[in-house]
Amino acid sequence: MDETALRELNHNLARQKREVEAALYELLPPEDAFPPRIHAAMRYGVMNGGKRLRPILVREACRIGGGDDAAALPVACALEMIHSYSLVHDDLPCMDDDHFRRGVPTCHIAFDEATAVLAGDALLTCAFHTVAAAELPAILKADIIRELSVAAGSRGMIGGQILDLEAEERVVSLDELRQIHALKTGALFRAALRCGGMVAGMDADSMAAVDDYAAHFGMAFQITDDILDVAGEEAVLGKPVGSDARNQKNTYMSFFSLPQAQQLAADEVLACLKALDRFGPEADILRTLAEYLLTRNS
Amino acid sequence: MDETALRELNHNLARQKREVEAALYELLPPEDAFPPRIHAAMRYGVMNGGKRLRPILVREACRIGGGDDAAALPVACALEMIHSYSLVHDDLPCMDDDHFRRGVPTCHIAFDEATAVLAGDALLTCAFHTVAAAELPAILKADIIRELSVAAGSRGMIGGQILDLEAEERVVSLDELRQIHALKTGALFRAALRCGGMVAGMDADSMAAVDDYAAHFGMAFQITDDILDVAGEEAVLGKPVGSDARNQKNTYMSFFSLPQAQQLAADEVLACLKALDRFGPEADILRTLAEYLLTRNS
Repeated sequence: MDETALRELNHNLARQKREVEAALYELLPPEDAFPPRIHAAMRYGVMNGGKRLRPILVREACRIGGGDDAAALPVACALEMIHSYSLVHDDLPCMDDDHFRRGVPTCHIAFDEATAVLAGDALLTCAFHTVAAAELPAILKADIIRELSVAAGSRGMIGGQILDLEAEERVVSLDELRQIHALKTGALFRAALRCGGMVAGMDADSMAAVDDYAAHFGMAFQITDDILDVAGEEAVLGKPVGSDARNQKNTYMSFFSLPQAQQLAADEVLACLKALDRFGPEADILRTLAEYLLTRNS
Repeated sequence: MDETALRELNHNLARQKREVEAALYELLPPEDAFPPRIHAAMRYGVMNGGKRLRPILVREACRIGGGDDAAALPVACALEMIHSYSLVHDDLPCMDDDHFRRGVPTCHIAFDEATAVLAGDALLTCAFHTVAAAELPAILKADIIRELSVAAGSRGMIGGQILDLEAEERVVSLDELRQIHALKTGALFRAALRCGGMVAGMDADSMAAVDDYAAHFGMAFQITDDILDVAGEEAVLGKPVGSDARNQKNTYMSFFSLPQAQQLAADEVLACLKALDRFGPEADILRTLAEYLLTRNS
């Protein structure tokens, strides 16, 4: 990835991040809505310096499908609300018991445990409200809610979380690890790209292509995430390096050396690019976004 | 309420309960779906001997509006999934820390805390999936999801839960107590009746009437709930009597003597009946259901 491309991508991502955050700000209940405590905790869980990858994937899939970006924005925000709720609950003492995320105290530390449980619940509820209230054809809204609820549900993201918890007590195989991540992080990446495509009314072949991209993107994301935990810089990461090993988490680094893992990530990124073969320059942001995973430092 | 009416009501409620539970059984992911642990915990949280009041209210509102009961059944089940998830999360150690509900161990005791958090999340997600996948016009599904997500969200049920938690640390006024319960339990009762009316395509005046009924039903339910906690029988209730007082919960019994509270509940039930004035015998089950609150023992 050359320097000009990286600069352009960063510029584009920064703009999209601002736009998504402005939309999130509008779509979440106002911070002073009654009762104030739950609304403060919801915003705390969402407005947290995240990269907004999933909303950007929604918008880019919509864009390469020739869809209306304004229509995709609420759907993009719903994805981010679901992602944010999952982090708030994942950080709880009974789950990963994390005190810091992106350099600031996690929701149950900044507020309290009960408030964090309820704020997560409220963000998930708000995500579905956001889609149901969006200015989109009703049939599309019902289809998107089905897609999201399957991806975020017991056979998708939540299924991956429970497998991950069960796996902490034992050593898993590489196939099991892949399955955990396909559900825990992959399902929501897929839903992001598919929902963007749905808003655009994408044809089946293009949808299959973005779906394929999403699967490899999810893998590349997870492998580079595991690499960062052993090789990242604490200050940039916002959390202690090596926490996976200390928490006896199963990661790709239990199976591979650093160069091997980097090669695997590079292979997944190549597969992302291949999946986009049918698209022209309109898919360049999705291409550089995949390549960016190999250079990410947080 | 005479004995024949009570017998007929009990017969009707028992039949509806069976039908709702059969539908819940079909609509929840199979217990052996992968991963099995989350699906077992979801079923544990729902198939728990509940009275199924909210689904029955959905169906009755649909019936008196002349709607199709088969169409209302998935919506009725979605209400019960939301109610069940809220109980699973309410029972958590960081919330009410209850070990028993209806005579059996609560979800986090039968499984573990992390599984209970995730099972609650999955039930909430499944509720929205159930509506989105129902055989109903898409516009109606989007409207019902909006109604449900507002009622169950941060300005509805979850808002009431956070107010209830905040209130544990101090003495609240009677007005505050009413507000807590209007949100914590009232909002979902209202959504049940309104969603049933929506499935039936009820006119605005009838909708206002069932909405009014719902508000008083919620109050009567809460007052009789508080009465049961001081005057109920532990064996029938399935949990220790007097737990509210021990947990320093704010209840109607902090403001009223037992006879006063019974009178208040009776007044609310009269208001329920008055709200149904515009309906004929088709609303008799809603009428007897309100009267039944005065004689409930669990």
